[in-house]
Amino acid sequence: MKIANYMDTRPSEELPGVFKREVITAGDGAPNFCMRVFDVEPGSSTPSHSHPWEHEVFVLGGEGAAAGADGETPIGAGSVVFVAPNEHHCFINTGGETLRFICLIPLQE
Amino acid sequence: MKIANYMDTRPSEELPGVFKREVITAGDGAPNFCMRVFDVEPGSSTPSHSHPWEHEVFVLGGEGAAAGADGETPIGAGSVVFVAPNEHHCFINTGGETLRFICLIPLQE
Repeated sequence: MKIANYMDTRPSEELPGVFKREVITAGDGAPNFCMRVFDVEPGSSTPSHSHPWEHEVFVLGGEGAAAGADGETPIGAGSVVFVAPNEHHCFINTGGETLRFICLIPLQE
Repeated sequence: MKIANYMDTRPSEELPGVFKREVITAGDGAPNFCMRVFDVEPGSSTPSHSHPWEHEVFVLGGEGAAAGADGETPIGAGSVVFVAPNEHHCFINTGGETLRFICLIPLQE
């Protein structure tokens, strides 16, 4: 059993203002999917893109929007987002604090 | 894209004092794994058991312990727990507030 605080994982800056912590990985023995925690700083967003794998997202804090083919939907603490495979999406920080969310993907990336 | 608040999902009482919300399921189109949110009330715990699938857990709030073959380890907001397949485990509320955590499992349960 691995037990840690997510803050103990060093973040990598994926894009300006977008930081990723890989908190459960194949290296921990995860056989099917992995857990990452993202911080998106005010004024930043994740890239608008699509890919063949899904996202399962839980928002920890901050204010933002999930953008897809149907436009932007507000998200905040407690929001759950399922992005289907090949669905266009991005996550935008629309507030003044860090937008922080968990995002899980299958290992077969 | 499914966007909702996890509180909008009706909880089921799995055991006395243990409530489960299934917030992303195969019914939403999830192809590989699903997301649940658990509330464990003070004095309660999840069953001590093992099974062939893994858990990927993120603790949202409360105070508790993750128990396994090596004993009990304190957990709280921000704790990440990876329970490997077939590893014995349970989650115990050791505090005075609800212990709330996200727990993901593969769909091939």
